[in-house]
Amino acid sequence: MQRTEISTLGEFGLIRRLTEDLPEPGPATRKGVGDDCAVLSYPDRQVLVTSDMLMEGIHFDLVYTPMKYLGYKAAQVNFSDVYAMNGTPRQLLADVALGRHFSVEDMDELYAGIRLACERHGVDLVGGDTTSSLTGLALALTCIGEADAADVAYRSGARPTDLVCVSGNLGAAYMGLQLLEREKAVFNTRPAASAQPAQPDFAGREYLLERFLRPEARRDVVQALREAHIRPTAMIDVSDGLSSEMLHICHDSGVGCRIYEERIPLDYQTAVTAEEFNLNVTTCALNGGEDYELLFTVPLTDHERVLALPDVKVIGHITEAQQGRLLVCRDGQEFELKAQGWNPLKD
Amino acid sequence: MQRTEISTLGEFGLIRRLTEDLPEPGPATRKGVGDDCAVLSYPDRQVLVTSDMLMEGIHFDLVYTPMKYLGYKAAQVNFSDVYAMNGTPRQLLADVALGRHFSVEDMDELYAGIRLACERHGVDLVGGDTTSSLTGLALALTCIGEADAADVAYRSGARPTDLVCVSGNLGAAYMGLQLLEREKAVFNTRPAASAQPAQPDFAGREYLLERFLRPEARRDVVQALREAHIRPTAMIDVSDGLSSEMLHICHDSGVGCRIYEERIPLDYQTAVTAEEFNLNVTTCALNGGEDYELLFTVPLTDHERVLALPDVKVIGHITEAQQGRLLVCRDGQEFELKAQGWNPLKD
Repeated sequence: MQRTEISTLGEFGLIRRLTEDLPEPGPATRKGVGDDCAVLSYPDRQVLVTSDMLMEGIHFDLVYTPMKYLGYKAAQVNFSDVYAMNGTPRQLLADVALGRHFSVEDMDELYAGIRLACERHGVDLVGGDTTSSLTGLALALTCIGEADAADVAYRSGARPTDLVCVSGNLGAAYMGLQLLEREKAVFNTRPAASAQPAQPDFAGREYLLERFLRPEARRDVVQALREAHIRPTAMIDVSDGLSSEMLHICHDSGVGCRIYEERIPLDYQTAVTAEEFNLNVTTCALNGGEDYELLFTVPLTDHERVLALPDVKVIGHITEAQQGRLLVCRDGQEFELKAQGWNPLKD
Repeated sequence: MQRTEISTLGEFGLIRRLTEDLPEPGPATRKGVGDDCAVLSYPDRQVLVTSDMLMEGIHFDLVYTPMKYLGYKAAQVNFSDVYAMNGTPRQLLADVALGRHFSVEDMDELYAGIRLACERHGVDLVGGDTTSSLTGLALALTCIGEADAADVAYRSGARPTDLVCVSGNLGAAYMGLQLLEREKAVFNTRPAASAQPAQPDFAGREYLLERFLRPEARRDVVQALREAHIRPTAMIDVSDGLSSEMLHICHDSGVGCRIYEERIPLDYQTAVTAEEFNLNVTTCALNGGEDYELLFTVPLTDHERVLALPDVKVIGHITEAQQGRLLVCRDGQEFELKAQGWNPLKD
């Protein structure tokens, strides 16, 4: 691949290259890239804002993460936070800091991923900052979205008897990460003289890799809820693991919950791979993180309607706070939910 | 000073500590810290959004930058971008990534600076992300502001015969940085056995240090313009240097300019210190950067009114594009303006 030093373009040249030919912005974007601020217009809507920071070596490993996937995922992670408010993402700002060993082509790839994610979710890339780093790559993305005031789903609205629902399946991204880490270890320990390039053993596990490397924020679920006239009482996206997110909802809503182990949705590949790694698959689903599924509560009266939704499962219900936050296992035993989610500051 | 490891609090504990007791948010903030997104309301206004990234070793040097000043400056830099659109900053999101050598107390100081800046400018801290870094400190701040649609000042609105104005004075921050770098070099080369702590030689230069370490975004200028019923045709804040910013306005407006060297406002300390460093003071003002003053254009008919503004100088005027972008020197010679501003990707 061609390698162009970033210094040949300079900061403004690089920004121009990365943001040229952006698609026509949506009606809420009055001015996108190219001034001190982007200018947005939300006359009758609530404005949602979220920000996420991704650091090389902490949140991603470039050994097995193509730049394009990284950009795509970073954008999706932000969109997911807006969907988790029952909103629609509209604009994205991307701050990127990069070391000297990155080329213009690397940045092209990163932005190609960001722009593809934006295109798929109808989001305008409206600004950001591009600068240098003494070491690795740092990304900070901010997403702006919108929602009707009455539709915004906070973490604090869950009420006793509400049903607890989750989209898709859980633990798959975590198992994808385990596979990638194992192959990296194999690669690093192969004989130096080996003429054979290491051949990753991912056959049949592509789904797990995709879940980790290229998650898709669940716009479809938010749309399905809207079409079914279901207004979630509380909602959060699963970034740190089911336990951690469920505890956020319980804490902020002042309630308890009962989650049934047997109802937690799992993909077949997740179960098989967990067994291979000698991991408890329920633990992976509870604490794995990075699934970017939606966890939400709905009134009991929506039971029929929520059962009719594609790719959504009811996994438990909300209780009074004093009944605790419980996981009910297959054998009927009850355990208190604990947040052992991914905590980069502790690991 | 007490040193508490961040691992004793964990990510959520740290966020709680840093965001507890935030002041009551303004009316445009429906929900601040603590959910997937902040929720804002701007029924009759344009929404302004800007983002900036600051990397340790590139944008700041912790050898001479106290954490509190760093937080204060990072926030002000973002506010400055909103003022440069003729708007009012309202909300701030702060993403922070930090290495293991930082303590809880370091973060307290950083946030104390961010919060002080927010308090002084009436801005609500509404979110962000706190995570870890393998190496240094990385900051990414996003500011949201508002303006009447008719008031927004883009870079593209300057017209021939408009007056070019600038607030405050230029080059002071750059000279402050030179002083700090000199003292750092002295400190690093002192004899290792020296019992005497190095005594920085800053007497009489405090103003320059303040300008670099603790800039103040020019809300007062935006307010004065409003009160005087002056609507800038174009505006930008001086972060990369007067030349670079002036060229942005000329490029985006499709115009030329004549800037008069003798009218560029300089502080006495800037001039004295530039001489001491054998630097041309005009060059410092043109290319120094980090002044965070406002550079703007107003119609010729506002001449009287703009002269009456405190701390604003008319330094030139806008011309047709084909007349070039010129600096007129004290001796009458004309030079083309060149952007030699601070370019972290090139240096």
